[in-house]
Amino acid sequence: MKTALVTGGAGFLGSHLCERLLADGLRVVAVDNLYTGSRRNMEAFADNPEFFFVEADVCDLSPGDPRLVPPQGGGRIDEIYNLACPASPVHYQATPLKTLMTSIKGVLFCLELAKATGARLLHASTSEIYGDPLVHPQEEHQWGNVNTIGVRSCYDEGKRVAETLVADNIREFGIDARMVRIFNTYGPRMHRDDGRVVSNFIVQALRGDDVTIYGDGSQTRSFQYCDDLIEAMRRYMSLDEAVVRGFFARHALGAPVLNVGNPGEYTVRELAEMVLAKVGSNSRLATKPLPGDDPKRRRPDITLAKELLGWQPRVPLADGLERTIEHFRATL
Amino acid sequence: MKTALVTGGAGFLGSHLCERLLADGLRVVAVDNLYTGSRRNMEAFADNPEFFFVEADVCDLSPGDPRLVPPQGGGRIDEIYNLACPASPVHYQATPLKTLMTSIKGVLFCLELAKATGARLLHASTSEIYGDPLVHPQEEHQWGNVNTIGVRSCYDEGKRVAETLVADNIREFGIDARMVRIFNTYGPRMHRDDGRVVSNFIVQALRGDDVTIYGDGSQTRSFQYCDDLIEAMRRYMSLDEAVVRGFFARHALGAPVLNVGNPGEYTVRELAEMVLAKVGSNSRLATKPLPGDDPKRRRPDITLAKELLGWQPRVPLADGLERTIEHFRATL
Repeated sequence: MKTALVTGGAGFLGSHLCERLLADGLRVVAVDNLYTGSRRNMEAFADNPEFFFVEADVCDLSPGDPRLVPPQGGGRIDEIYNLACPASPVHYQATPLKTLMTSIKGVLFCLELAKATGARLLHASTSEIYGDPLVHPQEEHQWGNVNTIGVRSCYDEGKRVAETLVADNIREFGIDARMVRIFNTYGPRMHRDDGRVVSNFIVQALRGDDVTIYGDGSQTRSFQYCDDLIEAMRRYMSLDEAVVRGFFARHALGAPVLNVGNPGEYTVRELAEMVLAKVGSNSRLATKPLPGDDPKRRRPDITLAKELLGWQPRVPLADGLERTIEHFRATL
Repeated sequence: MKTALVTGGAGFLGSHLCERLLADGLRVVAVDNLYTGSRRNMEAFADNPEFFFVEADVCDLSPGDPRLVPPQGGGRIDEIYNLACPASPVHYQATPLKTLMTSIKGVLFCLELAKATGARLLHASTSEIYGDPLVHPQEEHQWGNVNTIGVRSCYDEGKRVAETLVADNIREFGIDARMVRIFNTYGPRMHRDDGRVVSNFIVQALRGDDVTIYGDGSQTRSFQYCDDLIEAMRRYMSLDEAVVRGFFARHALGAPVLNVGNPGEYTVRELAEMVLAKVGSNSRLATKPLPGDDPKRRRPDITLAKELLGWQPRVPLADGLERTIEHFRATL
């Protein structure tokens, strides 16, 4: 039985990943400081005897920490998934330096652990490293357009330098690591107050409040359902190191970075109308002026993920929204 | 008497800064691991009773280290200058992870020290944060065009995230910090083997070797003499915190970042011919094919530095080259 370590395992995406890993027959150690994650996210699998939760901050961990190795595990860690970092502006801007140091120390911890154990590492990067892109859609060769000194920089630059740390550790120490650049993803267990448009709309609709659109609602967004992302991560981690290296060398990328997202585009107004229809809510659409710091449009080019993983998003927005609404209906 | 701490104080720029600070009547503590710096660089002022050298790696220092406070200093540090980091590709690519961690840990150390002592901090950033710029010349509002996963990323992304760390420490803790983005700078005490065009040409000419131009030599570069940079740094550090904050707020920059460089442009061929004429060398010009990873053209827009500091570069290339040639003639 293989053992996987998941940092950020109590978070929205981390908890879906843990659930999937357990279903795939792995033993799972989840590390989380419960800052944005929660025990509730782990309820569905907390009783699984192969699941181990370590309440700890990834910034304080060292690779030799005995809590990382479950008693039954034979001392081995086979796979590491680094998902620890507040990922919504509401959260990461509340404690910018903590966010930045979590990006840096979290990946350093995972790299040290990978070095010490020989485990394969999947580092969760983000479409935010593209910043405010000058070209659409984004493909992996784009370098990004990011401000180093703004209020969002703590997240963007922290995640950028984490990619650099992974890339240089691969080159210098031959670590078997791979990175996904995750685009906007939604689903059950999203944080209800994280200010993202999907959770905002659903919560407003369920409460019967006005569903608030900023601007005229014609701005477009891409939405990936969480299960599609987790499927891509699992396929990516199942590939031999030589296959991954060969693929990215052929594509002239300095390190294995793969966009994972759903390229389908919807206007914010379309999303709002779909949510209202599915919730069967009496809420009305309300518009407010577009704020200065509006999240930027990003759309993934997933050509490489399709080619390398034989993968593409499967869950239509309508279905994903239904499952997400169901979750919020049960937990609000 | 004020006390200044200079990290990288035995380096090319650091040693000029130490010399200037001593001449300005400050007590100086220089920290350097002598990786690219050298004792020879400090010969001109090593005997000054107000100069203290600490051989240490900035990555291993803590703000409470007793060596940082000279016995006569009354326990105070008034100014911190963070110049520690290998800055030429030859050096920084030899140990990419060490370079990256020096950027990160070095600035974290300086920020902690500034927090603990209330000292004013000048952080040396670089034009490399602009990467391969899409617009010329570069002004401070540009965000840069930088690869996160390439072989140069260790330096570029390390320096980018250092800016983010400074900016967020200013916002979160009210630290009195300022940053200069240093453009291509030359002068005595440059490392002779660092692969930069000025030192390359001078060393080749003095040795009577062919002076090697890559490509047709029509590519342009900007060259700032070291004394001009040091003058800008001193003026910048003499300004009241409120003046600095007001200035950058008015210019809608999220943190005090100031380009410091010489906007005058010369072709590489012009530079080679000036060096040959000044050295009186029998060397000939030789051309080689342009390598793939040719350093990118960058030219500073110094409007803000002129306005804030009443400063502009004073030393013409011809004069600066003469002083630099003199140095290399004496030390080769």
